[in-house]
Amino acid sequence: MPEQTEFPISPVPPKGAVQRLSLYLRELRKSASEGRDRISSTRLGKLLDLKPAQVRKDLSYLGQAGQPGVGYVCQDLIGLIQRTLGTDRKWPVALVGCGKIGQALLGYGGFDPQGFQIVAAFDSDPDIVGTAHGALTVQDVDQVADSIRRQGIRLAIVAVPADAAQATADRLVLAGIEGILNFAPVVLVLPKTVRVVAVDLAIGLEQLVFGVVRQLENG
Amino acid sequence: MPEQTEFPISPVPPKGAVQRLSLYLRELRKSASEGRDRISSTRLGKLLDLKPAQVRKDLSYLGQAGQPGVGYVCQDLIGLIQRTLGTDRKWPVALVGCGKIGQALLGYGGFDPQGFQIVAAFDSDPDIVGTAHGALTVQDVDQVADSIRRQGIRLAIVAVPADAAQATADRLVLAGIEGILNFAPVVLVLPKTVRVVAVDLAIGLEQLVFGVVRQLENG
Repeated sequence: MPEQTEFPISPVPPKGAVQRLSLYLRELRKSASEGRDRISSTRLGKLLDLKPAQVRKDLSYLGQAGQPGVGYVCQDLIGLIQRTLGTDRKWPVALVGCGKIGQALLGYGGFDPQGFQIVAAFDSDPDIVGTAHGALTVQDVDQVADSIRRQGIRLAIVAVPADAAQATADRLVLAGIEGILNFAPVVLVLPKTVRVVAVDLAIGLEQLVFGVVRQLENG
Repeated sequence: MPEQTEFPISPVPPKGAVQRLSLYLRELRKSASEGRDRISSTRLGKLLDLKPAQVRKDLSYLGQAGQPGVGYVCQDLIGLIQRTLGTDRKWPVALVGCGKIGQALLGYGGFDPQGFQIVAAFDSDPDIVGTAHGALTVQDVDQVADSIRRQGIRLAIVAVPADAAQATADRLVLAGIEGILNFAPVVLVLPKTVRVVAVDLAIGLEQLVFGVVRQLENG
């Protein structure tokens, strides 16, 4: 049998495929928890409103081929997607901004199952600093650099008001943060080495409106 | 001069371009508020980390061409993008689920500037029903259909726990809702006529991890 290193290295999947890997992962976990061992590309596609050929193409980036008539082994595919995304380990996350959105994130149940844990929370408001949320106590934002270095944190969530977001992000980058999930409705200007994913909640509604209006016009 | 109907109808912009229209809109508003009358594709691209040619292509779907050396008139482009997206009018929105995420959304300042207003909020928990958030009082979810019809609401936000999301969405669709912004980490299965945009907060972090890990491996 050939050594694994003799296989051609899979090309890096394009961005759209990477986004869909997160969706496949959720469906695979659900199917596995329901006792399914295997799943077909047809079924995965049906669950996510994608053509089976699209599913097979996306998964081929992982070097994984489903067997015709049998499909993919759920647990194998879960592991492979996690390794590809980099979520096969736990990721500690810093949260900066503990207003309403920050507090909702502290209570959000969707991070932990995906391997993310908010391990430090910061705010600049003296009324918020020192308050407890579960096991965490909100720290003064002046301590953010120390905390990030001490806890080896590489990812941060920015949930501060729009006008404070750029300065907060600059500070995080100086402290060594490599990736930022940004909830503030501004575009952060950061060095190319820092990854940013923006979450703008109104954009979701705008995209929805476009779909609703176009449907009416076409229908 | 030819009648407007004699112009060729612009093709519907593809999904990626529609998503970028939301981003252009934010930058244009910011530039206009700073007193700029015009903006070039180069500058818009720089603000959003896009090539100028990509910006020009996206905006060409609106039937709008920037003038070489002069650029686009900010206010014209803002109006045109809003008309294309369908956000040139106010959209009332229903919120179902007033736990931590729902409450953060009730206090979120990013909806109103984009033309969205949560005009009715619902929950099933007797401890939450009847509580006031600004001008809104949370209603029992059993009143959702009545309220949607009476207030002419077409868009809803689902912020209930995962195991209640599908039933909640089914109920909203029966009540006539045409578009759902879904915060629950499940894929909703709904008629093709209903648009769904999913907001999964952990997916943002997963995408971030992929970028961070790949950068390290390539670097």
